Amino acid sequence: MNNKLLEGVDSPADLKKLSVEDLPALSQEVRQEIIRICSRGGLHLASSLGTVELTVALHYVFSSPTDRILWDVGHQAYGHKILTGRKAQMDTIKKEGGLSGFTKVSESVHDAITVGHASTSLANAFGMALARDAQGESFHVIPVIGDGALTGGMALAALNSIGYKQSKMLIVLNDNDMSISENVGAMNGYFRTLQVQKWFQSAEKGGKKLVGKLLGDLVSRAKDAARTFFDPHSKNPFTAMNLRYVGPVDGHNVKELVYLLEKIKELDGPTVLHVITRKGKGMEVAESNPIYWHSPSKFDVDSPLEVNKKGYTWSNAFGDAMIEIVAQRKDVYVITPAMREGSGLVEFAAKHPERYLDTGIAEEVAVTAAAGMALRGIKPVVAIYSTFLQRGFDQLVHDVAIENLNVVFAIDRAGVVGADGPTHHGVFDLSYLRLVPNVQIAVPKDALELRGMLKASLEQTGPVAIRYPRGSVQPVAAGEWGKLEWGTWERLVSGDDIVILGTGKGLEYALEAVQGASNVGVVNARFVKPLDAVMLTQIARSARAIITVEDNTVVGGFGGAVVEFLAAHDLKPEVRVLGIPDHFMDHAEIPSLHAQAGIDAAGIRRTLETLGVAFAAAPVAAD
Amino acid sequence: MNNKLLEGVDSPADLKKLSVEDLPALSQEVRQEIIRICSRGGLHLASSLGTVELTVALHYVFSSPTDRILWDVGHQAYGHKILTGRKAQMDTIKKEGGLSGFTKVSESVHDAITVGHASTSLANAFGMALARDAQGESFHVIPVIGDGALTGGMALAALNSIGYKQSKMLIVLNDNDMSISENVGAMNGYFRTLQVQKWFQSAEKGGKKLVGKLLGDLVSRAKDAARTFFDPHSKNPFTAMNLRYVGPVDGHNVKELVYLLEKIKELDGPTVLHVITRKGKGMEVAESNPIYWHSPSKFDVDSPLEVNKKGYTWSNAFGDAMIEIVAQRKDVYVITPAMREGSGLVEFAAKHPERYLDTGIAEEVAVTAAAGMALRGIKPVVAIYSTFLQRGFDQLVHDVAIENLNVVFAIDRAGVVGADGPTHHGVFDLSYLRLVPNVQIAVPKDALELRGMLKASLEQTGPVAIRYPRGSVQPVAAGEWGKLEWGTWERLVSGDDIVILGTGKGLEYALEAVQGASNVGVVNARFVKPLDAVMLTQIARSARAIITVEDNTVVGGFGGAVVEFLAAHDLKPEVRVLGIPDHFMDHAEIPSLHAQAGIDAAGIRRTLETLGVAFAAAPVAAD
Repeated sequence: MNNKLLEGVDSPADLKKLSVEDLPALSQEVRQEIIRICSRGGLHLASSLGTVELTVALHYVFSSPTDRILWDVGHQAYGHKILTGRKAQMDTIKKEGGLSGFTKVSESVHDAITVGHASTSLANAFGMALARDAQGESFHVIPVIGDGALTGGMALAALNSIGYKQSKMLIVLNDNDMSISENVGAMNGYFRTLQVQKWFQSAEKGGKKLVGKLLGDLVSRAKDAARTFFDPHSKNPFTAMNLRYVGPVDGHNVKELVYLLEKIKELDGPTVLHVITRKGKGMEVAESNPIYWHSPSKFDVDSPLEVNKKGYTWSNAFGDAMIEIVAQRKDVYVITPAMREGSGLVEFAAKHPERYLDTGIAEEVAVTAAAGMALRGIKPVVAIYSTFLQRGFDQLVHDVAIENLNVVFAIDRAGVVGADGPTHHGVFDLSYLRLVPNVQIAVPKDALELRGMLKASLEQTGPVAIRYPRGSVQPVAAGEWGKLEWGTWERLVSGDDIVILGTGKGLEYALEAVQGASNVGVVNARFVKPLDAVMLTQIARSARAIITVEDNTVVGGFGGAVVEFLAAHDLKPEVRVLGIPDHFMDHAEIPSLHAQAGIDAAGIRRTLETLGVAFAAAPVAAD
Repeated sequence: MNNKLLEGVDSPADLKKLSVEDLPALSQEVRQEIIRICSRGGLHLASSLGTVELTVALHYVFSSPTDRILWDVGHQAYGHKILTGRKAQMDTIKKEGGLSGFTKVSESVHDAITVGHASTSLANAFGMALARDAQGESFHVIPVIGDGALTGGMALAALNSIGYKQSKMLIVLNDNDMSISENVGAMNGYFRTLQVQKWFQSAEKGGKKLVGKLLGDLVSRAKDAARTFFDPHSKNPFTAMNLRYVGPVDGHNVKELVYLLEKIKELDGPTVLHVITRKGKGMEVAESNPIYWHSPSKFDVDSPLEVNKKGYTWSNAFGDAMIEIVAQRKDVYVITPAMREGSGLVEFAAKHPERYLDTGIAEEVAVTAAAGMALRGIKPVVAIYSTFLQRGFDQLVHDVAIENLNVVFAIDRAGVVGADGPTHHGVFDLSYLRLVPNVQIAVPKDALELRGMLKASLEQTGPVAIRYPRGSVQPVAAGEWGKLEWGTWERLVSGDDIVILGTGKGLEYALEAVQGASNVGVVNARFVKPLDAVMLTQIARSARAIITVEDNTVVGGFGGAVVEFLAAHDLKPEVRVLGIPDHFMDHAEIPSLHAQAGIDAAGIRRTLETLGVAFAAAPVAAD
């Protein structure tokens, strides 16, 4: 690959030395570099391909780090990283000790926000613009937000505030008609209407000359507070929020983008630039299946193929169970906030569209719509990642738990998630769920237990949360549901001196850790709330020490529940609480994070040793 | 007062027996009854006065409980309660054992949702409509949402989903140009524009005849999918979301409302009916100052006067401190999500508009805008109620805590709040804040300590939460900041046998409880995270027992922190964790709730007695 232009670019300042005429070629070099980097698998390919020209144009026209470019979600920012001095480190992206997969303030002065969750850029930009104005500064603030992320409630609410305050900023709407799954929502329909508007077609045909003329018009009209450019009388959600609207424009014509941005830069107040991009742009297979190529497995750059290397995952186990359950009972409904693929719901959605709701990136709506359904006799199952349920915390308390409604939360990606890092680790749910009255919490040890819990949860009164991790699990035959006594724990290894109470991954590690140890018991603590009070009391009365192991913060989680229980009952065995430490863990492979946290088999063995346990045989090598 | 029509109405069915011609008189009776009920003070007067005619019309046209009327926030629903069989209990409203101040599912079959927080009605309605359609039912779903609540992100996101799914429902926009404070946001400006539109003026002049003609037009046009009624080419946020828009109409003409609702009832898909109401309608003083009369103190029905009986509150102490602080340092900014009055910020906002941001009812935006400011060198102080910060939980984790940004959270209404009940009790914050890495948590014992903490918090690195309760506090002279060693606890009563660690209200009660007890110490545990490890270790080594007292759930809060610390350090005094029990407490006076929870002086004394403490003198009567 010949990266002759890119070779000379180690900062935005270098980029500005190039002629505008060079930018299309540079964009191609950036694009090829992104494809090369992502070919190792597990990276965000399609989104970053879609924003190449936009990235080049923004850095050409604006001056980072003085000007602040805020990439919403941040997974489309590989081009941004390449152009802002991190070219040489791109092969470390998402690896332990390497670059983050998203933008991260502590990684580079060019990363305006630390991000990973969608829809945050506008409120952040709003705060930055107010800070700028309060301090008499004059830098530009440029949030770049996808049409999917714009459906998030906090993004819409921020637009409303920005329109009200008229803070100067350029909001780039990166419209590729995609979130990770398909886009939903009425505004999306509106964006599609805009795309076929005659103005856009004319602009495309007439090219730069027409755009130039219209821009001249724009600038003069801006002075008398006209807030729209194309078709001011259209039903436009931006103009309805008092934002100047420009667009839509072709997001892959870098020269036109530069021309436009130079003009818009001068405008006062908030402006929305509606840019049409194509996810996966420039890579044929990715353009035709951007959902797969959102984050593909390893591929050959010269002949990229779709490879599903993930095997059978917990998400699949959930989706398969729901297909069987919905065939058996007509009162079930599955809700996801824009995570159809990630939650294992592709087949369910296709087979049961009448029992399936995608709210878009709006977790609050997903949770409260579930409450509404539960109030009318439906048993909703909200399929949601642990980290995203944080978005629906108040809705869980206020709309679901107070009335003890029958809502099931199927919480995927619980525990550390690996390469996606601190914005995505689902290590708080046991704690934030446990503190909410009426919520029951279950943690399956395998797919069979997950199935049993799902089925049984629909018979419970009140909200139930079932949390399971990212990654693979042994599949279970259809029709198998196991035998689960709701609310009980399960002794898996007998032993009285020390008893390890393990949940989920913690249990798996505990079983490995006790090999060769004598009189150390292991219990599958599959219900975190309520605890199995009978078994716990029994253990606490007989055991010298209890070790709790969870893939959740050590603050207020399962271990916290156990020590609170023991204190309340004046039971005084020694207790060791093992879990995720009380700081944000960086990205790394999951086993490495577990080892750092000391919850893997080796870590548990170390803890056992501090309690005086000797191992009969040499322990199995720690993984 | 002559309530001859109202006397015969004990259900919506009774209401329907009246002639339309009777409805204006009935409305007046309902209005007078609301004024009479609210004259005892502490109730939501102005909002309920504004919705009288709307309430009468909705119950006249629709059939609750089959049809579901969802009152957003629920504090405007006094008329609804009166008309749905609770007439005789209205004098118990917000009293212990009496009616809730909001709608509550467990209180009446006519209350469609349990509510208290704003902006939830649309997502609930969306869920109900989907449940209805999935089950082949045909009832009507009618969310009634204020223009203030509509600025909430989850409301906007729900609109987007409703427009997409085209679920049949009638969304009533109750537009009084007010939330509890003033309304902000660009959409609000838009609503104001609509109000002066010529169509509205014409309709007002022409009266029912014109409206009737237009409605005929509406119904026929609806069939060919025309989605707007008045002025289809306007910049209308509803039509932009693919919602049929009707309005604006006069919300105090009950006969016209009935006529309109009868027509709209037949329409398919989602319709927005934009109703203009006046907060405080029909009560002169309330119309002219709806902010005071939102929830007035006790008044004389015949000559209502404004009386500030609240004395000096924690909120005042916060607001006064911020006025002094902003005079001393130029890098401070105060942010509130629509709680200017409640947070003690009226004077601050007037004196320092350039350092003050009201995001409207959008807590997520308040928190993340603070993050954006902190990233640009401002020290934002987010003034927010404990229960509403639940709305910004993910933003606190993702946008503030991961990068350890300098954001101060001034958390008002922490602990039980009394008459507002379970939707508003701020009893989870110590738990949900403590589980977030990097967050420091402080709990002042009095106004001086609050001031010291506020000042010192601005010198800290990373997020700081300072939580204080609803209610009055002894004022402190300007310029007094006290001496506070950050992170340390304070011994207030010496004693070694048993030590009570009290936070906030818990400390106040502990000081009262130990009167007459010997060798029981009391510590002001004013930092909940991190704990004062030195003092706690010292106490745990010497004391026989520790009692923790907090106005927060017993799950994962301050007591949880203490038992986790003790377990981690193998310290084994007996521990009693006193706090709010793990269920949702109903509304009642705050002291009564504290007594129920056993955290008042009497409760602490009972706990001391179980630990064998004898009291030298007869204890002071419990309050």
